[in-house]
Amino acid sequence: MDDPTLHEAGELEALRRILPLLPAGDTTELGPGDDAAVVRAPDGRVVVTTDTMLEGADFRLGWSTWHDLGWKAVATNLIDVAAMGARPTSLVVALAVPPSTHVSSLEDFARGLADAVASMAPGCGVVGGDLGTAPHATIAVTAFGDLGGRAPVLRSGARAGDAVWCVGGLGLAATGLRHLFAQALDAAAEPVRAAAERLRAGADGASIEAQLAPVSPIAAGTLLADLGATAMLDVSDGLALDAARVARASGVRIALDGAAVAGAAPGASLEAALHGGEDHALLVALPAGVRPPAELGGHAVRRIGAVEALAADERPGVTLDGAPLAPRGWDPYRAG
Amino acid sequence: MDDPTLHEAGELEALRRILPLLPAGDTTELGPGDDAAVVRAPDGRVVVTTDTMLEGADFRLGWSTWHDLGWKAVATNLIDVAAMGARPTSLVVALAVPPSTHVSSLEDFARGLADAVASMAPGCGVVGGDLGTAPHATIAVTAFGDLGGRAPVLRSGARAGDAVWCVGGLGLAATGLRHLFAQALDAAAEPVRAAAERLRAGADGASIEAQLAPVSPIAAGTLLADLGATAMLDVSDGLALDAARVARASGVRIALDGAAVAGAAPGASLEAALHGGEDHALLVALPAGVRPPAELGGHAVRRIGAVEALAADERPGVTLDGAPLAPRGWDPYRAG
Repeated sequence: MDDPTLHEAGELEALRRILPLLPAGDTTELGPGDDAAVVRAPDGRVVVTTDTMLEGADFRLGWSTWHDLGWKAVATNLIDVAAMGARPTSLVVALAVPPSTHVSSLEDFARGLADAVASMAPGCGVVGGDLGTAPHATIAVTAFGDLGGRAPVLRSGARAGDAVWCVGGLGLAATGLRHLFAQALDAAAEPVRAAAERLRAGADGASIEAQLAPVSPIAAGTLLADLGATAMLDVSDGLALDAARVARASGVRIALDGAAVAGAAPGASLEAALHGGEDHALLVALPAGVRPPAELGGHAVRRIGAVEALAADERPGVTLDGAPLAPRGWDPYRAG
Repeated sequence: MDDPTLHEAGELEALRRILPLLPAGDTTELGPGDDAAVVRAPDGRVVVTTDTMLEGADFRLGWSTWHDLGWKAVATNLIDVAAMGARPTSLVVALAVPPSTHVSSLEDFARGLADAVASMAPGCGVVGGDLGTAPHATIAVTAFGDLGGRAPVLRSGARAGDAVWCVGGLGLAATGLRHLFAQALDAAAEPVRAAAERLRAGADGASIEAQLAPVSPIAAGTLLADLGATAMLDVSDGLALDAARVARASGVRIALDGAAVAGAAPGASLEAALHGGEDHALLVALPAGVRPPAELGGHAVRRIGAVEALAADERPGVTLDGAPLAPRGWDPYRAG
């Protein structure tokens, strides 16, 4: 039984193999194994975000490896913590999978969590979790962060005169998903792993990678807050929709520059940059005089627009090169 | 469209109806609506626990109402916070359901969360969440608590000479589940709501209630910690197994008194009290001289055993009236 299933190994043996692979975290007082974990919150406040990744709706096991799923769970959740101007301290992971899942798959998942933390948020710990059974894999992550004395950076603080910046690339993850749907499904619309692997190793590899194992600019969150960010959010549902959220919350117009947006989307179309989703870039408003570095932690920092005051009777919204840009509402209940 | 489905109403409209029903919480600095919530952690540490409830494995929509599910999610998660000696401050809920689910069902779920918080943990807030789609309902809850300067009460602190107490009833939830399986399934093994409702209103109603909408002794956690609890845990997998966990973690023998255990299980058999599971009572070790109140927040407090030193070469374990009691390992991957 070199590579037993969960049914063969049982929960205790699975945990015995998985737990040592998880990063301990430098604010962890008590990790997995009791009724609950204990994490330090030096600031006296804790930033909290939760998200679920579901097989079928959010990922296909024929395309993503288990390592990818662990990696993506970290990349997509900790960026929400970063978008508040906080440093991610820890996360908990509740995983439900079929009993036929191999323990080695869960080890790969744990290594994905650990590798992503080491790469994007060193010092963050996986402090607890839950293992259960489900017919389709379900991954629920809750992540925590520390504000280090900063005020949280909300969506609502953008002011007319601020510049709008984007940290990280746009459109690539959606482009990768489009490639996978076009070239890595069989006649029965089932994912074909070999085709996905070929795409990933080929000319479109960067987009496949952005979709399956994204690298998000987590460390940039506190830096941008310290630069005076007035509003910030994780671009996850497409730039147009997420910019509209900032516009609405702040009561302003976000005027995007089409050429600059295209420049923030190497390898992707303007369409994908505006409406693609799953970018996990940071959209941030900074006071006009502030010049952030051209790169933060390997992620390009680009000015893509400006915050403008509303005219009388004008409703908050987004423009592209001066023309109104309608957000395409992504709604999980209406898709597909 | 008086009672639209999620598919008809969409996510925004669903959130517009659900969010006002959720309790705000008295440590909440920023609730739902941004990338993340911000919760005060006055102690400078935060207690964290996560758990998932899955349709099929953990509940049946033919037996549980949506209000029950919201209630149970609170009762079963906050007791893990309480078992550390902490006061629950907040929780986040990630919910994935089929698009055919009615918005009114989610409203009932939210009311269940709110009613349970008001009843068992007033002041606790629902500060964030996530809505998604899944073929079967999936509820992932992460709960937070504040230690108020206390040391967390671990499983590992029980010392020979301590008395073992139980706060809350044993065996009733498992008895209720047995009734439901015996009397509320149709010929195709599908749940029958009318039968479940009849049982709930009848002579076995208390056990059905304990299974579908349990009341857990959440407020007792900090009180027991303040009385000097040396070890504490939430009895969720059966007293025998959970007591064995304390014994192993503490390196002691837990000697249970059969008559006292039976006394802690009104309406249930000794078998159900020892091995039933889902009790969500608190098992706590207190120094010999400490006499807790006979009742805490409406939950009976009963002495059910003692912590004893191991003999040479003896392995940690549990006895019942002096005879070794083998825990029945509940393993989600091997059940069924």
